[in-house]
Amino acid sequence: MGEGELDGPWMSELENALISIMKIFHKYSGSTTGKLKKAQVKELVNNELSRFIEKITDQETLDILMQDLDENGDLEIDFTEFATFVAMVTCTCHTFFTVQE
Amino acid sequence: MGEGELDGPWMSELENALISIMKIFHKYSGSTTGKLKKAQVKELVNNELSRFIEKITDQETLDILMQDLDENGDLEIDFTEFATFVAMVTCTCHTFFTVQE
Repeated sequence: MGEGELDGPWMSELENALISIMKIFHKYSGSTTGKLKKAQVKELVNNELSRFIEKITDQETLDILMQDLDENGDLEIDFTEFATFVAMVTCTCHTFFTVQE
Repeated sequence: MGEGELDGPWMSELENALISIMKIFHKYSGSTTGKLKKAQVKELVNNELSRFIEKITDQETLDILMQDLDENGDLEIDFTEFATFVAMVTCTCHTFFTVQE
């Protein structure tokens, strides 16, 4: 799935958002059927979610995050595990922004 | 949370995607702490996900979708249930686009 092949004005805002989630996963997983290794999870979180999540700076924090996300225990994060993570982050942010009201 | 207060060039593509998911939910739930009623779920799916999901045209399909999404059984879809739905749709699309490769 090449970058930018899908998203565009013909897609709705929500559809473009879902495509962005897929694109960012592949940007870091390195291939269309790849998974994220621990180092790639750290890079993705620190580069792409730095306004929503505190930067990961120590190994223990990264290890705990990986344990939480790695549901099937293969030491890598597949797209389903990543989508679950994104849903959790979105809910946490939603609660935060809603409470700010 | 006003429209457009959050998203922007200072946010990453992924952060903007998560904000879009929140904005679209509130566009249809009608208030910042609202939930989606059955009619609003139908409207959201048909307007915002029409390239990813077949339009809902009959009551039975809508009833089944609501049952699947409404985890706490209150006959409405809250943001957590919506985020879970979005994650499922994203995974289904990811599988579809990846298989197309």
